[in-house]
Amino acid sequence: MTAGREPAEALRALLPAGRVLTDPDAMDAYTRDQTYAVPGAPLAVVRARDTSDVAATMAWAQEERVPVVPRGAGTGLAGGATAVDGCVVLSLAAMTAIREISPRDHVAVVEPGVITADLDRAARAHGLMYAPDPSSHEISTIGGNLATNAGGLRCVKYGVTRHSTLGLEVVLAGGTVIRTGGRTVKGVTGYDLTGLFVGSEGTLGVITAATVRLFPAPARPPATVLATFPSLTAAGAAAAAIMGAGLRPSLLELVDRATLRAIDEWRRIDLDPGAAAVVIAQTDGPECPADALVRECEGAGAAFAAASCDEAEADALLEVRRLAYPAAERLGKCLVEDVCVPRSRLPEMVERIERASERHGVRILTVAHAGDGNLHPLFVFDRGLPGPPPPVLAAADEVFSAAIDLGGTLTGEHGVGVLKRPWLDAEMGPDVRDVHRRIKRALDPDGVLNPGKAI
Amino acid sequence: MTAGREPAEALRALLPAGRVLTDPDAMDAYTRDQTYAVPGAPLAVVRARDTSDVAATMAWAQEERVPVVPRGAGTGLAGGATAVDGCVVLSLAAMTAIREISPRDHVAVVEPGVITADLDRAARAHGLMYAPDPSSHEISTIGGNLATNAGGLRCVKYGVTRHSTLGLEVVLAGGTVIRTGGRTVKGVTGYDLTGLFVGSEGTLGVITAATVRLFPAPARPPATVLATFPSLTAAGAAAAAIMGAGLRPSLLELVDRATLRAIDEWRRIDLDPGAAAVVIAQTDGPECPADALVRECEGAGAAFAAASCDEAEADALLEVRRLAYPAAERLGKCLVEDVCVPRSRLPEMVERIERASERHGVRILTVAHAGDGNLHPLFVFDRGLPGPPPPVLAAADEVFSAAIDLGGTLTGEHGVGVLKRPWLDAEMGPDVRDVHRRIKRALDPDGVLNPGKAI
Repeated sequence: MTAGREPAEALRALLPAGRVLTDPDAMDAYTRDQTYAVPGAPLAVVRARDTSDVAATMAWAQEERVPVVPRGAGTGLAGGATAVDGCVVLSLAAMTAIREISPRDHVAVVEPGVITADLDRAARAHGLMYAPDPSSHEISTIGGNLATNAGGLRCVKYGVTRHSTLGLEVVLAGGTVIRTGGRTVKGVTGYDLTGLFVGSEGTLGVITAATVRLFPAPARPPATVLATFPSLTAAGAAAAAIMGAGLRPSLLELVDRATLRAIDEWRRIDLDPGAAAVVIAQTDGPECPADALVRECEGAGAAFAAASCDEAEADALLEVRRLAYPAAERLGKCLVEDVCVPRSRLPEMVERIERASERHGVRILTVAHAGDGNLHPLFVFDRGLPGPPPPVLAAADEVFSAAIDLGGTLTGEHGVGVLKRPWLDAEMGPDVRDVHRRIKRALDPDGVLNPGKAI
Repeated sequence: MTAGREPAEALRALLPAGRVLTDPDAMDAYTRDQTYAVPGAPLAVVRARDTSDVAATMAWAQEERVPVVPRGAGTGLAGGATAVDGCVVLSLAAMTAIREISPRDHVAVVEPGVITADLDRAARAHGLMYAPDPSSHEISTIGGNLATNAGGLRCVKYGVTRHSTLGLEVVLAGGTVIRTGGRTVKGVTGYDLTGLFVGSEGTLGVITAATVRLFPAPARPPATVLATFPSLTAAGAAAAAIMGAGLRPSLLELVDRATLRAIDEWRRIDLDPGAAAVVIAQTDGPECPADALVRECEGAGAAFAAASCDEAEADALLEVRRLAYPAAERLGKCLVEDVCVPRSRLPEMVERIERASERHGVRILTVAHAGDGNLHPLFVFDRGLPGPPPPVLAAADEVFSAAIDLGGTLTGEHGVGVLKRPWLDAEMGPDVRDVHRRIKRALDPDGVLNPGKAI
């Protein structure tokens, strides 16, 4: 750290007052995300307030060959924003302007530090909505959502963050500011740079503004359907039947038996003890009548299925899904995982998770964005441990392998960060990894941007 | 040509019999697309039948530093597939297998030579549909659609080709075969290589298979609404009102006065002579009732608006849109253009086109995918000319500048090819072009892939 003091002072001199932190205690809060990934010691933290702060930092970092780790709110679940030794942590959290909301073009122009749910609320004041809603949407930033191409509950109907992104302002390694895409819903001039930067986890450039698509907000609050199933296969079949019927629910979640038990132990939710899984669906439009959702669930073998349009009652039904994470955290520390499989393989994937749980003696609670085939197994371990013990890692390894084996992927929406890099070869193979490295070198030849992450 | 005979023989020796053409007359049909772009003389044409033909060709071309121009059906409208001197034209038109249609996962795996409408028909046999439907869908290939990220009429509801593409098999410069993406609807492992190759116009790799998303086919034939408007502004306001109300039409087209006149001169369609524009909309689902479309048109000032659910009558209404191209071609040769602006700027863009038409004395007919802000001005010129004369080029230049000026883009769905490269700097600026060149060099360091195109 002491060796680094001098360069940090040079950086401080380049930026307006108050932007650079070097006190280790003050910097500590900027070194981690929500994982157990062990951070390195940064040289400095830059709290950027505008694009020119970011450009100056990037130009300096390139010159000095200092690694830069961009971050938003630090809510990531893959270690993508954890500090590396001797880096500058570049916080975008203070760039919180919503520069524009256009009710005519259904777009917003936002800075990366805007909290995702705040953008949605601002859009609703104009009868619009910002669709992507990761579970963290009340605490995560648009910048972090863009960096990981975040999903969420509504993305079964409205698509993931990339689908809502029309254009970007990006600061490249070296400090050049570019603009990609635009504010049209179509456009094929040049390569899809917007799509390339989205999901690149801060390894190709630093996003300093985004032009995002807004959708008309649904006229009424959603109707909610809850159904219990005697088997996972039946629950998976219900999800497949709903999607297959072209119903377009705005939410379609599955909660497995282990999660239901954990919730029941805590809150006594009075669910059928024979229930192997619960499916929760919402609809926000006439193309997806609630009674059709009920019908598809019954047709797939639901023991119980009912809809509610009453907002308070619908909230109570959705509460089962919302309680999954806190119920898991009551039991210990959690490794929150994120595999995705083709929709039809969902029941099989849940079974493979159950098998891994038994084989390694690890409690695993699984919730899934069932309409997308995206599962979040929560691996519970002892609160006293600094990170997941060997049986948890072995069970996770088995789950990742199973996902790839079933034609799926290591991560549906959280990203690779540092934690999933060991499995990249298994999913991509060496040639595709090589293509990644070539693109990385093309845009960041000195490797200053978020080294050791994502690819 | 004679100088090239020897390398062509070496290529012939590498491939199965019947793959390589070198006879100039036989090769001629593989040198052009549907534009006036003047092709160079190829060394050879390879008619690939499988991925290994493509890989062998790419390996040889890299070794010999011979340019490769990939092509599908040659229906492009930007010169992206025109041969360059001394190149190998690599035709994917004979790779026509639909390798799989999965009704469970709603995906298809297809080779690039499959005709787009054929894939849609094959999907419909399973109650599904392939959504992207460029006007050329009965003659263009999936491979060409992927290369240009083609749009179409339904993309106002279902998105463009990139949105329907989950994964690719790509042969890189040098012949390495890679697989990107997968068959899950979500996935964030690594960079969005799938999105990068889609729309790259054959400059980064050759797509030899694609895993595409299918949607449940609508249960009933669409209902069609036709409305006439006394002003462009009112027609544009109707399109904006329909999209603003969240109605999600499956088609939303605008036909301008010049086009209506050309159709009427030819077919006497009995339209109100005071009509400045016609809006044609279709709906394929209950989230977009036809009477709501009529109401929005009336609210925006339509002189006439009516819906039909009768299939024959709906077809007759849609005929107005379908007649636009043949009506223009009746008048002479056409330069088919393709600008896209933010939705709200559509009426202004049509006015700018009308002004360019008057100023340069060029007849321009404009049809637009109004819901997307994507306009196709058709510049008519004398049939005796080999290509567009100076006044047409001057008018086109004015139209491109106007699109960029209104926050739009040079091309919404046709691509850049050779014909639009002169305007790239105006839209992108030098820094973004430089990023393109860096990515191109990273994936094709010797520049063998479709040189002089797209970027």
